[in-house]
Amino acid sequence: MQVAKAAVLEEFNGRLGVREFPLPEQMDPGAALVRTVMAGICGTDVHLWKGQMPIALPVILGHETVGRIVQLGDGLERDWSGQPLNIGDRVTWNSASSCGHCYYCAVKRQPTRCPDRRAYGIGYRCDQAPHFLGGYAEFHYLHPHTTIFKIPDDLPTEAVIGAGCALITAIHGIERTGIAWRDDVVVQGAGPVGLAALAVAKSAGAARVIVVGGPKGRLELAKKFGADHTLDVQQLREPSQRIAAVGELTGGHGADVVIECVGTPSAVPEGMEMCRDGGKYLVLGHYCDGGPVSFNPHVVTRKQLQILGSWSSEPRHLQSALEFLRAHPQEFPFDSLVTHRFTLEQANEALVTTARWESAKSVIVAR
Amino acid sequence: MQVAKAAVLEEFNGRLGVREFPLPEQMDPGAALVRTVMAGICGTDVHLWKGQMPIALPVILGHETVGRIVQLGDGLERDWSGQPLNIGDRVTWNSASSCGHCYYCAVKRQPTRCPDRRAYGIGYRCDQAPHFLGGYAEFHYLHPHTTIFKIPDDLPTEAVIGAGCALITAIHGIERTGIAWRDDVVVQGAGPVGLAALAVAKSAGAARVIVVGGPKGRLELAKKFGADHTLDVQQLREPSQRIAAVGELTGGHGADVVIECVGTPSAVPEGMEMCRDGGKYLVLGHYCDGGPVSFNPHVVTRKQLQILGSWSSEPRHLQSALEFLRAHPQEFPFDSLVTHRFTLEQANEALVTTARWESAKSVIVAR
Amino acid sequence: MQVAKAAVLEEFNGRLGVREFPLPEQMDPGAALVRTVMAGICGTDVHLWKGQMPIALPVILGHETVGRIVQLGDGLERDWSGQPLNIGDRVTWNSASSCGHCYYCAVKRQPTRCPDRRAYGIGYRCDQAPHFLGGYAEFHYLHPHTTIFKIPDDLPTEAVIGAGCALITAIHGIERTGIAWRDDVVVQGAGPVGLAALAVAKSAGAARVIVVGGPKGRLELAKKFGADHTLDVQQLREPSQRIAAVGELTGGHGADVVIECVGTPSAVPEGMEMCRDGGKYLVLGHYCDGGPVSFNPHVVTRKQLQILGSWSSEPRHLQSALEFLRAHPQEFPFDSLVTHRFTLEQANEALVTTARWESAKSVIVAR
Amino acid sequence: MQVAKAAVLEEFNGRLGVREFPLPEQMDPGAALVRTVMAGICGTDVHLWKGQMPIALPVILGHETVGRIVQLGDGLERDWSGQPLNIGDRVTWNSASSCGHCYYCAVKRQPTRCPDRRAYGIGYRCDQAPHFLGGYAEFHYLHPHTTIFKIPDDLPTEAVIGAGCALITAIHGIERTGIAWRDDVVVQGAGPVGLAALAVAKSAGAARVIVVGGPKGRLELAKKFGADHTLDVQQLREPSQRIAAVGELTGGHGADVVIECVGTPSAVPEGMEMCRDGGKYLVLGHYCDGGPVSFNPHVVTRKQLQILGSWSSEPRHLQSALEFLRAHPQEFPFDSLVTHRFTLEQANEALVTTARWESAKSVIVAR
Repeated sequence: MQVAKAAVLEEFNGRLGVREFPLPEQMDPGAALVRTVMAGICGTDVHLWKGQMPIALPVILGHETVGRIVQLGDGLERDWSGQPLNIGDRVTWNSASSCGHCYYCAVKRQPTRCPDRRAYGIGYRCDQAPHFLGGYAEFHYLHPHTTIFKIPDDLPTEAVIGAGCALITAIHGIERTGIAWRDDVVVQGAGPVGLAALAVAKSAGAARVIVVGGPKGRLELAKKFGADHTLDVQQLREPSQRIAAVGELTGGHGADVVIECVGTPSAVPEGMEMCRDGGKYLVLGHYCDGGPVSFNPHVVTRKQLQILGSWSSEPRHLQSALEFLRAHPQEFPFDSLVTHRFTLEQANEALVTTARWESAKSVIVAR
Repeated sequence: MQVAKAAVLEEFNGRLGVREFPLPEQMDPGAALVRTVMAGICGTDVHLWKGQMPIALPVILGHETVGRIVQLGDGLERDWSGQPLNIGDRVTWNSASSCGHCYYCAVKRQPTRCPDRRAYGIGYRCDQAPHFLGGYAEFHYLHPHTTIFKIPDDLPTEAVIGAGCALITAIHGIERTGIAWRDDVVVQGAGPVGLAALAVAKSAGAARVIVVGGPKGRLELAKKFGADHTLDVQQLREPSQRIAAVGELTGGHGADVVIECVGTPSAVPEGMEMCRDGGKYLVLGHYCDGGPVSFNPHVVTRKQLQILGSWSSEPRHLQSALEFLRAHPQEFPFDSLVTHRFTLEQANEALVTTARWESAKSVIVAR
Repeated sequence: MQVAKAAVLEEFNGRLGVREFPLPEQMDPGAALVRTVMAGICGTDVHLWKGQMPIALPVILGHETVGRIVQLGDGLERDWSGQPLNIGDRVTWNSASSCGHCYYCAVKRQPTRCPDRRAYGIGYRCDQAPHFLGGYAEFHYLHPHTTIFKIPDDLPTEAVIGAGCALITAIHGIERTGIAWRDDVVVQGAGPVGLAALAVAKSAGAARVIVVGGPKGRLELAKKFGADHTLDVQQLREPSQRIAAVGELTGGHGADVVIECVGTPSAVPEGMEMCRDGGKYLVLGHYCDGGPVSFNPHVVTRKQLQILGSWSSEPRHLQSALEFLRAHPQEFPFDSLVTHRFTLEQANEALVTTARWESAKSVIVAR
Repeated sequence: MQVAKAAVLEEFNGRLGVREFPLPEQMDPGAALVRTVMAGICGTDVHLWKGQMPIALPVILGHETVGRIVQLGDGLERDWSGQPLNIGDRVTWNSASSCGHCYYCAVKRQPTRCPDRRAYGIGYRCDQAPHFLGGYAEFHYLHPHTTIFKIPDDLPTEAVIGAGCALITAIHGIERTGIAWRDDVVVQGAGPVGLAALAVAKSAGAARVIVVGGPKGRLELAKKFGADHTLDVQQLREPSQRIAAVGELTGGHGADVVIECVGTPSAVPEGMEMCRDGGKYLVLGHYCDGGPVSFNPHVVTRKQLQILGSWSSEPRHLQSALEFLRAHPQEFPFDSLVTHRFTLEQANEALVTTARWESAKSVIVAR
């Protein structure tokens, strides 16, 4: 029986320990085993680590992963988009899958709200076989029906992990919201989701994208990703200043679309005021429960707003994301976001740099 | 110089006094003078009376009015829908008009947010000629470009006033929101806007409409207007009870569309919880600023909601409203809502019965 | 080994012969065997019989079927909407299923265009086990993943078969097209699809529905189903007359939405002229290839039209259809369409009455 | 009384003659007089010249014009987007205006179908004052309510005229159609409308745009404007070859959106076959009546298509066009399309080079 290592979250706020688990000896039909190439540290991992979301421990974190196939279960011959799959192929996958036939999947066509979803790196205990169901490990087991994508040779692993789940979240959210050609867009936040929303908005026809965030290094990244204007929250410290600045940049009207990528509740009423009347507001950054905020519903009526939420993403968004990354390596250099690399043993340090916003993107490179 | 009477709001919370003003001696081209047949008391009038919206006094209230044409300015030969207009015709009109060529009217096609809008019965002082710019008066002057509609002979004045601005507000809001065929709909509120939203939702393809409100008499009216279920807020006193009841009636999922017609801020977070995941929430009742409420933005993301606001209405909505009222007199008996009639001198009593929810709809019949 | 009977199409235009086949002796996991209660004769069956669509023979026709469960494969415990399934339950099902994960199913969300679809009563040869894959038979085998629906006790079999695949086709098509509240709608054709489109349009918010068709008996049925106006093609023999009549009924503008339910190519350019400028045209009746027609593309540009096609339907449409039939038995009496009943041995006569438009709906009652 | 020159179309297919007319001596309130800077020759002008559209003669052609203001009527102080207007300002304008309050403008919000539209350079006889109502002249009179736009100093006249009415037509059509982020798009035609559609599609989020057209020089231009692939109709002479080539470039599925910019009827059935199932087809090039084509409606049903028409454009599209041209001078070098310049006296030669496709864009420079 072969064993392999994983960094395990055993108690909230505790130090991740490297543990060994037995590798699965045989594959279920349709399943696969991959050797991890790179695992991204997502902001959500920090929240999970701190116990801010209710999950069962112990768990191997990591829901943004690239690996190479080492074993293929019977019948698994092609990836989700129809490409042949072989041992040695570099692949990535959606961390969660929907059932395809429930009320939310089939009747209401909101598969991301399927009650059967359960995400690698979040929703599986690792003290039960097949153990390897998160990215911070030497290997990753992929259950049957996992939506796997072969990564084209000319697309670097760093681009896939640098974009991470932020990009597919942004793609889904912007699809739901709709950006009209030549719309003025505000992105609140310059973290991974904010940069991804900026990239998608720019490439989806926005005339101008204004990024509101900080610190300075992040806003410089935003400029590199095509932001037409940046507003530094460390300089414009009051919401009213930022709202006024957006107004000035948009002919006094406000933006057609404002995308919240911060996760801080107070950003929401602020962002609504950045919308023009009849505009749209996408609440994209509230994946975690950040608690309530005081909000005036009269604003929604008077400004005739449209406010949208978007949760997670579908396999087709990951397919688009990979094609997009491949098509625009210069314009949107997501690979350059991978600024800090760690070993499995340094998983804790990786979380800390992410928590402290020291890195653009921290990653674990298994060996 | 001929004079006529009007009930005038001279100070907030004060008693409306009957005053006389000179009638305009000649019409501007495109203008008209009508003799008031009936003026509706809208809930907004109560807010205006109490000084809860910033308006300049003195003012003749009344923005839901039917009158008969007594004078037509040069060039005013047809109503907005193309019908010929003659002296003696019974007409109604939109209380506000948009300019048609500004940023909101022409670029963003949100004419109800035109900055030039100014409403009869709200936005005009009556101590300046032509004085008669509100419904609580013997006559009403209609400025050029007022969007006038001739009322068909078989459509009673009571139906038009019973529906009032509530119906056109609901039509616009539901148009913005979209109700899919066989959607389950919740209407929060059983006042005029709630009943109107119920009527529009039922006739727009909703499978079931659940009305949440009170008191009992209102819910009986809701039943008469086709509500499939009613939930009495005096029995289900806790939001959690009402949310649970909606859940039970909708297979555990929540409603596809929830329409807020209450104006109370706390109704808004409650209503969002009544939506199924991926559902829509229309904030329709917050015409006035009722102040803030505590709200958790995580709900919008997690439930993948779509929240919409809608302000006022366009002339085409009034045209549809009149056709709708005429087509469904039995199914949606808006005329029966006119339960209390007052003279001009009793304008104050009319406001009081409305404020106390004693009437379904109070009206002023000029003489 | 038990055997059962089926009416079999062995050669195009030939007489259907009653043959015996062995019943499957055991169920695959997830499969089911039902005893046929009633099978509808669809217009498409006539086309299949005549060889106008390329199918492999021999085949048991019949893709609109109600049956009672006699055997359930392992794991088949609930119907598609989650109701428990038991021996003896009366059920119906979608004749075709999509794979759920191909380009059309999952990337483009057009599951009715899934290349793996294959329909009962059309796409399966009956000389191979499990033989019973069409409605004109004593039994029907349901493959695993068939989307089965339990029929509520208060919904008569006649309503389900009277509505048939026409209703779900109309539901899907009208969903794609969108009928706005108070739209004026024209339905071309008064056959099963036309009546279904009329019922859906009326209940989806149409102000008025004009049915253009014949013969007289069909138009009387249309009136019974709520048509506001009918135009008899035997009286108005020229397209120009019918276009003019629609114009007169719609204030000179044409209809907001025109739904083609005829299948005759010449109906298409005629129907486009019945649309108002900026209106919508749904090509719903061209399931079969009826050949080309002369058409002027300038009309599409000049009238600024939107033309839509819709193919087949999804399981959620059948779920809605059953709820709709149950909710409106009086308003839309689909059960009354079942005018002619035949035994299996009379399958040929059933086809002939359908081909000759002698029946509203012919059905086969197995015994 | 001052006079000025114009090139006048006096009989169809005849030679345009230079005539003199008196300049208007005073402006109506809201009107303006401009001195022509440059007038574009549109393909439509060739059709008008040849008598292929029913217009009243004599007429001064030219509906794509830039001029400098020489006189402003009372009250004309700002352009349509709110910029101040002064003598000497360089401006352009929409050739046609809508009334704003008719059935098509206000009820159905299809202002380009307003029955009161009448276009400069097409719909006004020049033998009646104010004579100067087309671009091929030294001066142009602008009626009150003409939607005028001041041209920013850094936007060259050549860019405005090079884009011409093709760009605003494409913007409107693509707005109606909707291009989703990462859609594959085919543009049929490499003339001015085709290049404009290409530019708008690329900047609106298309993943790849395939241009089908010719001759070679045009396809090189298309490459310059960002076409990902070009298909030369002189090499692929059969529709079936072109359809197959599009299939190969789109993974065998066909394009998400196909935009017809040719005006040849036979392009329409060909283009439908280039769509993937469930795709969209925009008929944009059939401004003139090119006669009928044989078409099979079964294709619309079977492929579940959406076919759209779009007519002309609204002022907001011209506003967007000017901002777009200014934002992307390098990416979409519309100014470089102005390849042939003519004097008023050479108006005929200008038409001929356009008719023979010798120029990308021919223009008249008044002096």
